[in-house]
Amino acid sequence: MNSKHLMIGDPCPPLINGKLRIYSMRFCPYAQRALLIAAAKKIPYDVVNINLRTKPEFIFEKNPGGKVPTLELAGDDEGCLYESLIVCDYMDDVYPCGASAGDGSCVDRLTAKSPLQKAKDRILIERFNAVTTLDNQALMLPPESSDAEIKELLQNLVDSLKPFEYELGMRGTRFFGGNEKPGMVDYMIWPWFERLPAHALLWGSNFDFQQAKSCLQQLNAWEEEMIKDPAVKESYLSPEVHHTYRLGKKRGSQDYDLLLHSKD
Amino acid sequence: MNSKHLMIGDPCPPLINGKLRIYSMRFCPYAQRALLIAAAKKIPYDVVNINLRTKPEFIFEKNPGGKVPTLELAGDDEGCLYESLIVCDYMDDVYPCGASAGDGSCVDRLTAKSPLQKAKDRILIERFNAVTTLDNQALMLPPESSDAEIKELLQNLVDSLKPFEYELGMRGTRFFGGNEKPGMVDYMIWPWFERLPAHALLWGSNFDFQQAKSCLQQLNAWEEEMIKDPAVKESYLSPEVHHTYRLGKKRGSQDYDLLLHSKD
Repeated sequence: MNSKHLMIGDPCPPLINGKLRIYSMRFCPYAQRALLIAAAKKIPYDVVNINLRTKPEFIFEKNPGGKVPTLELAGDDEGCLYESLIVCDYMDDVYPCGASAGDGSCVDRLTAKSPLQKAKDRILIERFNAVTTLDNQALMLPPESSDAEIKELLQNLVDSLKPFEYELGMRGTRFFGGNEKPGMVDYMIWPWFERLPAHALLWGSNFDFQQAKSCLQQLNAWEEEMIKDPAVKESYLSPEVHHTYRLGKKRGSQDYDLLLHSKD
Repeated sequence: MNSKHLMIGDPCPPLINGKLRIYSMRFCPYAQRALLIAAAKKIPYDVVNINLRTKPEFIFEKNPGGKVPTLELAGDDEGCLYESLIVCDYMDDVYPCGASAGDGSCVDRLTAKSPLQKAKDRILIERFNAVTTLDNQALMLPPESSDAEIKELLQNLVDSLKPFEYELGMRGTRFFGGNEKPGMVDYMIWPWFERLPAHALLWGSNFDFQQAKSCLQQLNAWEEEMIKDPAVKESYLSPEVHHTYRLGKKRGSQDYDLLLHSKD
């Protein structure tokens, strides 16, 4: 998962027999969605990391847009799939009981069975685009932004989370997917919760997300539960690490292999 | 389906017992997607048309974004759903055999059963966004656009359709959904095929879509078949009617009730 990000000129590593492959970028929240679902369902997979600034030629053979996540299928279902939500639904559909089915440790579907609940969950995931847009705006705010501009963006961000606070309260469960364990909605929105606290490291007290979200009690309790989830733990990175990567990205010199370098 | 478009101050008509309701706008391609699926599956529904310039207050109670299509559910599954793809998938999920199940005229699922085919179909629908973006650009081209600019856009539009031409050839079937009848992909992309020929009425020979798409043989044959489909016929409008509506839209004075006025 932390392997070197392959770039232009690099060959594509051979597929590993019987394993799904996820083309990823270690700091991409959309790619993380795919890693979370594969982990939650205990599907055997390998990761090929892609340098998104100087993409290796082979990624365009897998996905005409050259984006991550891209899923390369193993076995009878040869070929590639892309778009994070499509990839995640596919994994949930094709491994309905997880890869460990048969040994007694069957993992249930992450998608709701009822068509109505499934549709409501998909609407919720669509509505989360407001959060991802604001997260990106906060990242791209120019350094000369006024205190008022930064604080306004923080308030908009908290406001965009309120429908999720409300919905979790209405559902009355620990996770959006129920009491037992996270479901599709939980995993699709998680990557941004991992990253949102990093804004405070960039903007200081003007973007005190921790304080601003104190009104989001249900979501805060949810976040505490999510961070303990084994699938979340597998790909989790601290706000400090996200901050270091994002600082580079803001300067146009992001270090995709940051985690390898820090181990030098 | 051609009822008056309700506006600010108008009350919401009472639901009709046992019928789904589709909040629509007669010329909206996204709303048409929902009408197509309801028609294809013979689901009983009524339509409430919404004036999108001066929206009636009640639409925001149904959908916080106030957009169409919005689906209001009848019976046990009370509530509203929105986003065209989510609404269409819901109708396909909840009426797996159409509303006429039991009388021997069972309509099959419009969505592919195989998770792989379902994912590939969803990718195809996502890729169609390139076409809808270009259609909108062609509509919004300023009147002073040069011949070269108009022709370039036409070429881009034809290029954006080529993956669909290729895919239909690969599938070797009359419809994207198979040989027998249109499936989800067919209905999700159809509304734009109904509208694309209207550009020629606006731009004349500089936007001769009919001539430009002569290279898209599979798609042209598909279009001929689609136009004969009973579900398509139900909501079909001619390029001339789309042109009249779009001309108004370009001028900021679209006539939502055009079809009612033309019957005066």
